[in-house]
Amino acid sequence: MATGESSAARNRQWLLARRPSGMVSEADFELAERPVPEIGPGEVLGRVRWLSFEPAMRGWMDDRESYVAPVELGEPMRAPGLAEVVASNDPAYAPGDVVFGMMSWSEYVSGGWSARTAGRGYRRVPTDVPREMLLGPLGSTGLTAYVGMLDVGRPEPGDTVVVSGAAGATGSVAAQIARIKGCRVVGIAGGAAKCRWLLEEARIDEAIDYKSSDVGRRLRETCPDGVDVYFENVGGSTLEAVLDNLALGARIALCGLISGYNDAEAQPGPRNLFQLIVRRASIQGLLLWDFLDRVPEAFADLRRWVTAGEIAYRVDVQEGFENIPCTFLRLFTGANEGKQLLRL
Amino acid sequence: MATGESSAARNRQWLLARRPSGMVSEADFELAERPVPEIGPGEVLGRVRWLSFEPAMRGWMDDRESYVAPVELGEPMRAPGLAEVVASNDPAYAPGDVVFGMMSWSEYVSGGWSARTAGRGYRRVPTDVPREMLLGPLGSTGLTAYVGMLDVGRPEPGDTVVVSGAAGATGSVAAQIARIKGCRVVGIAGGAAKCRWLLEEARIDEAIDYKSSDVGRRLRETCPDGVDVYFENVGGSTLEAVLDNLALGARIALCGLISGYNDAEAQPGPRNLFQLIVRRASIQGLLLWDFLDRVPEAFADLRRWVTAGEIAYRVDVQEGFENIPCTFLRLFTGANEGKQLLRL
Repeated sequence: MATGESSAARNRQWLLARRPSGMVSEADFELAERPVPEIGPGEVLGRVRWLSFEPAMRGWMDDRESYVAPVELGEPMRAPGLAEVVASNDPAYAPGDVVFGMMSWSEYVSGGWSARTAGRGYRRVPTDVPREMLLGPLGSTGLTAYVGMLDVGRPEPGDTVVVSGAAGATGSVAAQIARIKGCRVVGIAGGAAKCRWLLEEARIDEAIDYKSSDVGRRLRETCPDGVDVYFENVGGSTLEAVLDNLALGARIALCGLISGYNDAEAQPGPRNLFQLIVRRASIQGLLLWDFLDRVPEAFADLRRWVTAGEIAYRVDVQEGFENIPCTFLRLFTGANEGKQLLRL
Repeated sequence: MATGESSAARNRQWLLARRPSGMVSEADFELAERPVPEIGPGEVLGRVRWLSFEPAMRGWMDDRESYVAPVELGEPMRAPGLAEVVASNDPAYAPGDVVFGMMSWSEYVSGGWSARTAGRGYRRVPTDVPREMLLGPLGSTGLTAYVGMLDVGRPEPGDTVVVSGAAGATGSVAAQIARIKGCRVVGIAGGAAKCRWLLEEARIDEAIDYKSSDVGRRLRETCPDGVDVYFENVGGSTLEAVLDNLALGARIALCGLISGYNDAEAQPGPRNLFQLIVRRASIQGLLLWDFLDRVPEAFADLRRWVTAGEIAYRVDVQEGFENIPCTFLRLFTGANEGKQLLRL
């Protein structure tokens, strides 16, 4: 094996030890050591170099039907990330290649990767792009922001666009794309620092701090003609406030509902869905998977915008395999400042 | 005046006496007598012959922003209906013409009708179509069902289509249009009689009686591959049950949310909006006004289907000006059997 890995080496993993009730905690995970997998014909072995964390991963820990199968108890948690090929029985992958895809909370991943590339599998990534950029604005959150804003939200120049979770990995890219497309952009985020970043670095028009202000009142002030496009990451009372301020024909791109992800009991939805009739508005749920044909163009546009400084981004890079669970938890306490990554 | 009306005649009206808190009651209305209006240049006087009642009218009684201005206290309530022209200073209308449009709970209506025809005004109706058909499946509820099902729901042959309020004026037409278009149709309605009518007369595939069965369980049984199109009239727990049973890419045409119309306090929305992401589904609010260019084709299709017996319909015709308020209330007790009309 080119990089000198030995099959006698150990593969440390963080397993799902129990299904959380309510807020996730470190005790929901358990450390295990297993042998580094032997690879069979057509299979590839990769060493996990980076992991990326998203709030939606919280849902994978629950035993209920969702857009992916839940993680089984006793199996390693999953996370998107980058791996470096260390051994390959597949001519499509050579040692040293770096691939992006769904990893696990492990030091090594293996399998028949070519069989997966058609759908949601591993794709080789360029070596001349910084890793933080690849996993940040050019990663799945950035790509989701791109298709969610442009293909689902469909803003026109001059539209008023509101983004919740606007300082987050997805929301910040969505908000800046709307700005690039000539829209008036209002971001909703928690705390003065995030709002300052939105105004000064992301250069959107207005920032609403939901922790210190009445979101409904601030929406009425900042969107007097109503909200044409709403990029929704949060749900709860924020969604309700925006529904009361829609413009005629408004489009809501429903990307996430993070405010409810740690609830043991599902919380009630908005009381004012009737506003969808009053405003002849729509809500469309979205996942990146349905837009895979758009990824090459999205990747190229985002790379150009980020390189030109038109899209600002922040990554919060933690270090070390042992810190995987506590890094994941940062998403739910708001401790992360930018896209949450971890380098192994 | 051709029909012998005298300007000394009295015009009885039912006024909105107070804004209901919660369930509407007869005491919310008050009888008044006013002179029959004198008409000025370009104006027309019509005698109201038929009124038509819809659950959404309940919302017009509340003093809050909606898709139409609220009825003012002390002003007559509104309702769509038919009037016969009795005097006209507008060459576009002759005595004896029958027009469809937004009437009031009055014996006479007057005004500059030509100015209103462009938008939501009065249109002359054919004399060779039964009045009950004109105000039933060919009226605004039938036309709404047509555009809501075909333009918003967009069912494909073989799709599983669910309709709530399926025995109602709008739902019953929506369900039968889906059947005509080759879909498997499941209707949700309250009570054995309505369900029997759906199966035997409307000839849809399944009927779920929400009063006597677990809607969620029955949806899982009758829609094992999920719901492709949902035509929503009801909201509340019914919406929640359908959201849990959506097929990938499902479309929800949001026509009404009648379950909440009489609530003094707005009720919470569905707890499972996340299913819109899981299923990449959409909710689109709709009003007929946005589809006025579709009305001629819709009217022609519906007339052909009704005449050929492909669309069954029921009208519940009450009689007499004095019975207007109690007739309106029938909508909220489920007493009406079919489209609620009243002949003056």
